Amino acid sequence: MAAGEVTIGVVGLGLMGGSVAVKLRKEGFLNRAVGCDINPDHGKRAVELGIVDDVVDIKRLSSESDIIVLAIPVDKAIKILPDIMKNVTESTVVLDLGSTKEKIAQAADKLPNRGQFVACHPIAGTENSGPDAAFDSLFDGKVNIICDKEKTSEIALEKTIKLFEILGMRNKFMDSKSHDRHIAYVSHLSHVSSFVLGQTVLEVEKDEASIFDMAGSGFDSTVRLAKSSPTMWAPIFTENADNLLLVLDRYIKNLNEFRTLIEERNDKELNQAMTEINVIRKVLKG
Amino acid sequence: MAAGEVTIGVVGLGLMGGSVAVKLRKEGFLNRAVGCDINPDHGKRAVELGIVDDVVDIKRLSSESDIIVLAIPVDKAIKILPDIMKNVTESTVVLDLGSTKEKIAQAADKLPNRGQFVACHPIAGTENSGPDAAFDSLFDGKVNIICDKEKTSEIALEKTIKLFEILGMRNKFMDSKSHDRHIAYVSHLSHVSSFVLGQTVLEVEKDEASIFDMAGSGFDSTVRLAKSSPTMWAPIFTENADNLLLVLDRYIKNLNEFRTLIEERNDKELNQAMTEINVIRKVLKG
Repeated sequence: MAAGEVTIGVVGLGLMGGSVAVKLRKEGFLNRAVGCDINPDHGKRAVELGIVDDVVDIKRLSSESDIIVLAIPVDKAIKILPDIMKNVTESTVVLDLGSTKEKIAQAADKLPNRGQFVACHPIAGTENSGPDAAFDSLFDGKVNIICDKEKTSEIALEKTIKLFEILGMRNKFMDSKSHDRHIAYVSHLSHVSSFVLGQTVLEVEKDEASIFDMAGSGFDSTVRLAKSSPTMWAPIFTENADNLLLVLDRYIKNLNEFRTLIEERNDKELNQAMTEINVIRKVLKG
Repeated sequence: MAAGEVTIGVVGLGLMGGSVAVKLRKEGFLNRAVGCDINPDHGKRAVELGIVDDVVDIKRLSSESDIIVLAIPVDKAIKILPDIMKNVTESTVVLDLGSTKEKIAQAADKLPNRGQFVACHPIAGTENSGPDAAFDSLFDGKVNIICDKEKTSEIALEKTIKLFEILGMRNKFMDSKSHDRHIAYVSHLSHVSSFVLGQTVLEVEKDEASIFDMAGSGFDSTVRLAKSSPTMWAPIFTENADNLLLVLDRYIKNLNEFRTLIEERNDKELNQAMTEINVIRKVLKG
C-alpha cells in the first residue's frame, strides 16, 4: 500500500467521507477513489467535484478498495457492515468514522475478518453536510480516536494510523465504551443543547428579522450546531442514549439550579457559580 | 463636535469601552480620550495601551467630555448615572452600552438632562474582558440598538447615530422594553445555556485531558460564552430576570421533551424535530 497506489472506497459522499477523499488525493496518496451514496445526486455531485472517480455499488466498492471508509449515519453503518466485511479482499482495511462506537464495534465482533475492521472517530466536523461541504483541511490538527485497537490486526492498525496522519490528525486510543461516554459529554450534549436552543428561540421569536439583527453576539456560536444534519444526529442520540441521558439529566438539573439563582436575583451566587465555570477557559487552553 | 476635536470619556476600560476609544482614535475622530475604572490596574493598562490619554475621576470625566460612554456592569451603570448626569455640560452626550436597557432607561427618566442620555446596545462582544481584550474592529458590520429615541434630544441623537456609524455599526431603533425581551432570547439565554453546559461537562469530566482532546467539534463553540465575565453577566441575568425566566423555562421544557424522545429511542420524531429546527440556518442566513 504505497502512496499513489491506493484505491479508496468511500461509503457516504458527504462532509466526512468527501473530505477524507479530497485530502488523500491532495496528498498524492490515492490511485483511485470510488464511492457510493444512497442519494444519487450526491454521487453525481461527488464525481463532478472530483471527490471520487466513479460511483459504484457496494459490492464492487468492497472488493476493489484497499481502504474502505464508512461515513454514513451510525445506524446505517451497522446495517451495511456485514455486506462489506464478507466481500473484502484479505488486505482491505475497513474504517468506520461514526460518532458512536460501542454498537458498531459489537456488530463487527460477530462478522468475518474482524481484524480488518477499525472503529475510528475523527473528532472534526462542521454544521454543513453533503459533498459540497467537503474540504481538504477539515481534519488538520484534530484528534482521531481509534477504538479497541487490540481487535484490529497489526497491519490494519498500522495502515490506519498512517492514513489519519496523512489526514493531518493525531491518533489517540480508547476502548469503544469509554469513547461513547466521553463523547456524550463533549459533543453529543453540545448538539442537544444547541438544537433545543434553536428550537426555543424560533418558537418565541415570531419576528425573524429580530433574530437576525440581534444575533451579533453569542447566539450564532451557541446555535451553530442546530444546523447539523438530522439524519446523522438522530441515530447518534438514540444509539448513545444511555450515556447522553445521564449527562443531559445533569445539564437540566444544573439549569434548574441556575434558574433559581436568577429568580432569586442572587447576584452573588450567580457570580460565584460563573467564576467557577470560567475554569473552562484554562481547560480549553483558550 | 467636528472630527478631531472631540473629547471622549470612557467609564469602564474593558472590552467594550476600550474598543470604542481605540476605534474612534483610529478614525481620527478624537482630540482626547479620558477614562476611569474601579480597577486601578485596568486604568494603568489602558494608558499603557494608548486606549486613553489619562485616567481621571468621574467628576472630571463628566465635566470635561463631549461624549461619555458607560461601559460597566449594568448595575454599576445605574448607580453611577446620577453623578454623571448632574455634572455634564449642556452639550455632552451620555451613552450607556449595557446589555439590558429598561432599568437604566427608567433611572435616566428621573435625572436631570434626560435629553442628553442615550440608551444604546451595540450587539458585539467576545468572551474576553479587560483593556487587553479591546480591539478596533469589534463593532464592524454589527448592529447597534438605540432605545427610546424620543426621550433623547435631536442633537444628541444625531451625534449618537454618527458615532456608531464611525464605529462601523448599523443603527436600529427600539423601545427599551422590547429590547430587553428580544435580547433575552437571542443573547442572554445563549449565555445561560453555555455557562451551564461548561459547568456540567466540568463536573462529569474529571479527566481534564479528555475534555481538551475530544473538544474538536461542537463543544468549543457552544461553550465559548462560558468564558465570559461573571461581574458583567450576573447583573444582566438578574436585571432581565423576568424576560429571561420566561424563555429559560421554555428552553428547559423543550429539553425535557427532547430528552423523552431520546429515552424512547424515537429516531423518527427526533429527526422531524431537528429538521424543523434546521430552519435556523435560513434565519441566520448562514
